[in-house]
Amino acid sequence: MKTYLDCIPCFFKQALEAARIAGADDVTQRQILNDVARVIPEFRLEASPPEMARTIYKVVREMTGVEDPYLEIKDQSNRLALEMYPRLTEKINKSTDPLFTAVELAIAGNIIDYGVKNSLNVDRELEKILANEQQKIQHEGARFFKYEEFKSELAQIDNILYLADNAGEIVFDRVLLEVIHQQYPKIEIYFAVKEKPAINDALEKDARDCGIGTVAQVISSGSDAPGTLLSLCSASFQKLFWNADMVISKGQGNYETLSGVNRPVFFLLLAKCPVIANHIGCRVGDVILSYQNKNVM
Amino acid sequence: MKTYLDCIPCFFKQALEAARIAGADDVTQRQILNDVARVIPEFRLEASPPEMARTIYKVVREMTGVEDPYLEIKDQSNRLALEMYPRLTEKINKSTDPLFTAVELAIAGNIIDYGVKNSLNVDRELEKILANEQQKIQHEGARFFKYEEFKSELAQIDNILYLADNAGEIVFDRVLLEVIHQQYPKIEIYFAVKEKPAINDALEKDARDCGIGTVAQVISSGSDAPGTLLSLCSASFQKLFWNADMVISKGQGNYETLSGVNRPVFFLLLAKCPVIANHIGCRVGDVILSYQNKNVM
Repeated sequence: MKTYLDCIPCFFKQALEAARIAGADDVTQRQILNDVARVIPEFRLEASPPEMARTIYKVVREMTGVEDPYLEIKDQSNRLALEMYPRLTEKINKSTDPLFTAVELAIAGNIIDYGVKNSLNVDRELEKILANEQQKIQHEGARFFKYEEFKSELAQIDNILYLADNAGEIVFDRVLLEVIHQQYPKIEIYFAVKEKPAINDALEKDARDCGIGTVAQVISSGSDAPGTLLSLCSASFQKLFWNADMVISKGQGNYETLSGVNRPVFFLLLAKCPVIANHIGCRVGDVILSYQNKNVM
Repeated sequence: MKTYLDCIPCFFKQALEAARIAGADDVTQRQILNDVARVIPEFRLEASPPEMARTIYKVVREMTGVEDPYLEIKDQSNRLALEMYPRLTEKINKSTDPLFTAVELAIAGNIIDYGVKNSLNVDRELEKILANEQQKIQHEGARFFKYEEFKSELAQIDNILYLADNAGEIVFDRVLLEVIHQQYPKIEIYFAVKEKPAINDALEKDARDCGIGTVAQVISSGSDAPGTLLSLCSASFQKLFWNADMVISKGQGNYETLSGVNRPVFFLLLAKCPVIANHIGCRVGDVILSYQNKNVM
């Protein structure tokens, strides 16, 4: 996905938020915004938003000297999600279609980071998302929820590359992976996290803290971009990406960098911003399981 | 009020919106955002946001060649508000305290421009604002609604300088001015509009179209800033500003430029943005009648 002009105000918003989270004083916050203003005119809109985001967070790191501004938020998100884990598995156990419920939960788990930053009642928000989604899927005939395709593909494959998004949220991914593992025990799962801090994206430590290792092999994308910019990923990751039987891409950042890539991908995301909702053709807040199933480049 | 760092992302949002309203193509929209990015690092935060907004709209005018991008929106706003006028006066006639209701209506009328741009049901929105406000004034003891001070001042003065905000909204101002005129027929009212296009701010033509002339003398501030930047106003306006018995300042732009000025002012506004709400100490959406009643510089 290319960068839209509507992303530009948002880049400044993100820069300011990151600067504050990194503990920058007012003067440094202003310098960071000025630095972003200086690179904006040079930025190619053909690039995806996470390329610019990567530049922004680099500016924040350099100006503040804080290597991982979101460390505390990530830890909080992990803790909050782990506290919810027993309730999530209970929901799965009670479900008449555990895989369906697990997919929904994995996507809705995207709300965790927002909850931590905005003191949101995550439990309540989650229930709201799930209730809305059930209604929408019933009313709109699963236009943005390709569950049947997803299920039928799972029955035919030997391995999955799962591209993680945020810390905390990965506990919800774990629930989905556990259901997949239970139903298809022979499928090998690779769970890719970022190599270095990229906003609140999960790193290897987060995957460890959230118990992903019990159900998948945790690997690194080799990159610090908040998405999957293939050119910045390690050779081994790229090989896995092109050869995996199934790629599951989680969250907005991965969608922005991989929609349009020349291989089939299942995108699981909560459409949190109007630009992405518009690109997909859905509404903000929608729970999306889309299938990019043909060569689109 | 100074400019906060949170205003910077918003400047880009405003620039993009104005560029689109002016009919700029994608390339010109990008150039406009780049031009704004180039002036941001030089902008002094000690200046009020409307100073920067003035620069932004100048860039939009120059890059698009459109002298008054909001002309159509202003005309639509005027028409919509004039259609509502009979219902507004009916509300006043039924009120047990017409002045109180007129003040509330004048402030709530600030929603008009937003309604026109976002196909909002203005009637419903207005009722919601008024209902919320009644509740809040009852619960919070009129913390941000200095009605008694306003009423007691009115009984002692000979003239008012009323600083208008948006087109359309001025029909709601007219309703307030009519009630003031009815209750205090000797008070002379000067209604100040902008000299040249400033976003969707009312100009002399709008005041004429909305029938302001029946109840007040329409004058120009002499400036094209979307607020009251005194240094840019005409000498005659400045003289009136400093010598008027009462100044009523309407809307956010006038608040941003005049809060802290060295004379008493009644500010009537709907707190539409979090920065202003924070500066006042109220919540977004609050209906504000505040009284800056001492020398604060």
